[in-house]
Amino acid sequence: MLEELAVLVKEKFQVVFKNQTLLEQAFTHSSYVNEHRYLELTDNERLEFLGDAVLELLISQYLYAEFPELPEGKLTKMRAAIVREDSLSKFAKECGFDQYIRLGKGEENSNGRKRPALLCDLFESFLGALYLDQGFDAADNFIHQVIVPKIESGAFSHEMDHKTALQEILQRNGDVAINYQLVSEEGPAHEREFFVEVSVSGDVIGTGTGKSKKNAEQAAAAAAIKKINESSAKH
Amino acid sequence: MLEELAVLVKEKFQVVFKNQTLLEQAFTHSSYVNEHRYLELTDNERLEFLGDAVLELLISQYLYAEFPELPEGKLTKMRAAIVREDSLSKFAKECGFDQYIRLGKGEENSNGRKRPALLCDLFESFLGALYLDQGFDAADNFIHQVIVPKIESGAFSHEMDHKTALQEILQRNGDVAINYQLVSEEGPAHEREFFVEVSVSGDVIGTGTGKSKKNAEQAAAAAAIKKINESSAKH
Repeated sequence: MLEELAVLVKEKFQVVFKNQTLLEQAFTHSSYVNEHRYLELTDNERLEFLGDAVLELLISQYLYAEFPELPEGKLTKMRAAIVREDSLSKFAKECGFDQYIRLGKGEENSNGRKRPALLCDLFESFLGALYLDQGFDAADNFIHQVIVPKIESGAFSHEMDHKTALQEILQRNGDVAINYQLVSEEGPAHEREFFVEVSVSGDVIGTGTGKSKKNAEQAAAAAAIKKINESSAKH
Repeated sequence: MLEELAVLVKEKFQVVFKNQTLLEQAFTHSSYVNEHRYLELTDNERLEFLGDAVLELLISQYLYAEFPELPEGKLTKMRAAIVREDSLSKFAKECGFDQYIRLGKGEENSNGRKRPALLCDLFESFLGALYLDQGFDAADNFIHQVIVPKIESGAFSHEMDHKTALQEILQRNGDVAINYQLVSEEGPAHEREFFVEVSVSGDVIGTGTGKSKKNAEQAAAAAAIKKINESSAKH
C-alpha cells in the first residue's frame, strides 16, 4: 500500500520522498498504531502539528502577496476559510489520500475514512512530512498544485475580485447601488487605455485605469476599497 | 527615530534591513497613519498577519525537533503558551521595541505603548517584515535570540511535565544521563508513600515524595528545576 501511495505522490505531484518512513507515518492513524503495537509504529499526530503551521504560513504569504490591497481582517477571514476542516478534508480527498490512510478496525468500521476531521489531519500531516523531507519550497509547490488553483477560481471568496469585495464591503450596512462608468478610452486599438470611475449614489469613490474596461473597473474598485479602509480606520 | 530603531536592530540582532520602509511599516500603528494622512503611510496590520504565521511555524518546528518524545497535545499546549499575547508583549518589551512604535496621540495618551495587545501585534509585524526582507532563516535566527533562550531556561516548562522540563534544561549543554532512583517506600498499601532522588553524574540534584513512584519522580524533577533556577538567579 505504501508503494502505491509513493507512486500516487510521484505521479500526481512529482514528489519522491527521500525518507519513505515519513510518508508512511503521515498516513498512519493512531487507531492503527494501537491495534498493531508490536510493529512499534508512530502515528501522524506530531506531523499534523507541524503541517498545520506549514500550511498557515504558506497560505498567509500567498494571500499577503496576491492581495496587496486587502486589509488584515479580510486576509484573516480568507485564510480561515481556506484552512478550515471542511476545506482541507476536501483537498485530502481530491488528492486521493483517503484511500491510503491506515486505520484501526474500529475506526474503519465507523466510517473514519470519510470523517472530515480525520481527512483534515491527514492533509496536514502529509504537508508536515513533505516539509521535513523536502523543505519549504516543495511544500509551497504542493500548495500551488492543490490549493492555489481553487483560490484563483474563486472557490473561497468573492473577495477574490475587487468588484465583489467592494460590493461586500458597501453592502454590510444594507443594499447600495454601485455604478461603474467608463469615462474615457485613449490610445491606438492595440494599446488602448480605459479610464473608469466607480460611484455610489452619485459620489465617485474610486478611479482606475487598465488595458480593458474590465481591468479598469477592477482597479477602480481596488482604489475605492483602499479609501474606505483608510477612512474607517480613522473613525 | 527610524535611524535609532535601525541601530537597535543592527546592534542587538545583527540585522540590517535592505528595505527600510518595511521596518518602518512594522513600527507604524494605524492610529499614527490616521493622524498623518498626508504622509500616505501604511500601518503594520498586514505585516502582523504574515508575522503571526511565520512565528507559528518557527516555534512549531523548534518544538517538534527539540521534544521528539512529546505528543501532539503537549506540543500544541506549549506552542499556545509561547505565542500568546502575554508572552509576545513581554518579548517586544525586552527587545526595546515599545520605544519605537509610532502611535497617534489618542493611543499614546491612553497608554497604548504599554498595551499588551499592541505590543504583541508589534512583535508579530516586526517578524513579518524581517521574513519579507531577509527570509525564513533570518527570522529563525531572531527567534533563537529572543524566544528560544526563554524556552530553554524553563520559562514555559509549566506546560511540560517536570521530567521533560528538567531533561530540556540539563541537555542544553550536551547530553547528560539523568537518573531517578527509588530510595524508599513507606506506609500501608493503601497509603503508600514513595521517595525518589534524581541525580546527574552521581550528584543528587533533587528529591521528591508522592503516592506513586511516577508522582515522586515528577516531584523530584520539579525540586531540581527549582534549585537550578534559584542558583542561576544568584549568579
